[in-house]
Amino acid sequence: MAETLRDHGDPGDAPSVPAPLTPVTNDARPSAAEEARTIAASTSTATLASLTADGEPWASYVTYGLLDGQPVLCVSHMAEHGRNLSGDARASLAIVAPTTDPDPLASGRITLAGRVERPTGDEYTAAREAHLAAVAAAKYYIDYSDLTLWVLRVERVRWVGGYGRMDSASAADYLAAQPDAVSPKAAVAIDHLNDDHADSLTAMARALGGFPDATGATCTAADRYGLDLKVSTPRGIAYTRVGYATPIDSIDDLRAATVELAKRARS
Amino acid sequence: MAETLRDHGDPGDAPSVPAPLTPVTNDARPSAAEEARTIAASTSTATLASLTADGEPWASYVTYGLLDGQPVLCVSHMAEHGRNLSGDARASLAIVAPTTDPDPLASGRITLAGRVERPTGDEYTAAREAHLAAVAAAKYYIDYSDLTLWVLRVERVRWVGGYGRMDSASAADYLAAQPDAVSPKAAVAIDHLNDDHADSLTAMARALGGFPDATGATCTAADRYGLDLKVSTPRGIAYTRVGYATPIDSIDDLRAATVELAKRARS
Repeated sequence: MAETLRDHGDPGDAPSVPAPLTPVTNDARPSAAEEARTIAASTSTATLASLTADGEPWASYVTYGLLDGQPVLCVSHMAEHGRNLSGDARASLAIVAPTTDPDPLASGRITLAGRVERPTGDEYTAAREAHLAAVAAAKYYIDYSDLTLWVLRVERVRWVGGYGRMDSASAADYLAAQPDAVSPKAAVAIDHLNDDHADSLTAMARALGGFPDATGATCTAADRYGLDLKVSTPRGIAYTRVGYATPIDSIDDLRAATVELAKRARS
Repeated sequence: MAETLRDHGDPGDAPSVPAPLTPVTNDARPSAAEEARTIAASTSTATLASLTADGEPWASYVTYGLLDGQPVLCVSHMAEHGRNLSGDARASLAIVAPTTDPDPLASGRITLAGRVERPTGDEYTAAREAHLAAVAAAKYYIDYSDLTLWVLRVERVRWVGGYGRMDSASAADYLAAQPDAVSPKAAVAIDHLNDDHADSLTAMARALGGFPDATGATCTAADRYGLDLKVSTPRGIAYTRVGYATPIDSIDDLRAATVELAKRARS
């Protein structure tokens, strides 16, 4: 469960959001650990925070691959961040999910914090492959002698999903979680739902989402567990969740899952 | 002058780049301080490195505006990075220039390091305006009581322009520099030069760029001081610089400056 949104010290200014009038049938959604794994898998660039010899924080742009969820960096020991990691293994990585939202703080991002280690043996081979799989250009430099592979041993995970959606995850949960196979590929399907199936979305909001007074609904996101809906009601704009009958693990299953939701909403 | 590109420990693998055969007429280019100011002005999102209570480095996504080149952050004291800045003022900010290059390490990026301070009085007002000018959505939350404005007092500047282009700049030079008014807006003009004026670019490379044996040239960048050219020669691919007669401070002046270069190259 995400932390409750805390007010920003001036609740009188906050718009009130209508509450559901009936129980929400299935509000399952990705855990913070799953959200974090999905964001980690969504790109191959990040910013590293390392420590200078004076213990000062140093932010620097890096590329990474993922080895079972652990970031694999490839940095030069001639660069400041390379010297920093050699001097102090404590590090963290901020990763921002690609977004087209004009509001930069509406996007999802994570911080993975822990300690870096140089992989050896079979893990070195796997880490090298993981970095190359994510960063195509690395084939030109990964074997130069000044470059070092580092695996970030994740100890702390912080996820921010946008305004008011944030939580911490344990490292164990993060490492055990799977990235979402649906949400990064759902944009076209969401457009189709909103363009051609507005009535079905409204029916879902009424029958399954807890808003029998819905006058309209649009889908704002889809993931392995269900749809996020933005609901118009006479009481104002509300937000709810409609979960599929069973979770899905491929974008190819999204159509059947939403057809089932629409049928159930009208039955 | 940028630092000389140091090899990566395996010079035998590095491709050799043909040297100019004649003097380069005018190789003026932006200083590291100017490059850094241009990158700082190119976006309003960055990653902050701050220190936890245990002195560990914490990377987190932030928005910023610029007050005379100094980043102005607006962060909540309920967020980890907000608590970190309150506990230890040492901080740095990594900023990556927007890019369409498929190779993430070909893009320009900077690290600005120093200490944060809460602005007061007239500087508070100016810092607030600077943040709002850069981050439109901040008008919805900037005055909430949990949010604090911080100005990063820049003490160290590190610029990386891409592969082999990197340098440090003094804080004084960074603060005194002006962002480039030409390079962020030059894409259309560069396409036009390459599509319709390939002969002129080749003439520039031969007469002004030091490559009388050029068989072709394309423009890869344009800034206030001149053009970067990628030059085809019988000896291989080379890179050079052709500086305008005088620096320009508007994209509107780029056409006249390149026409003058073309005329001079053919005279």
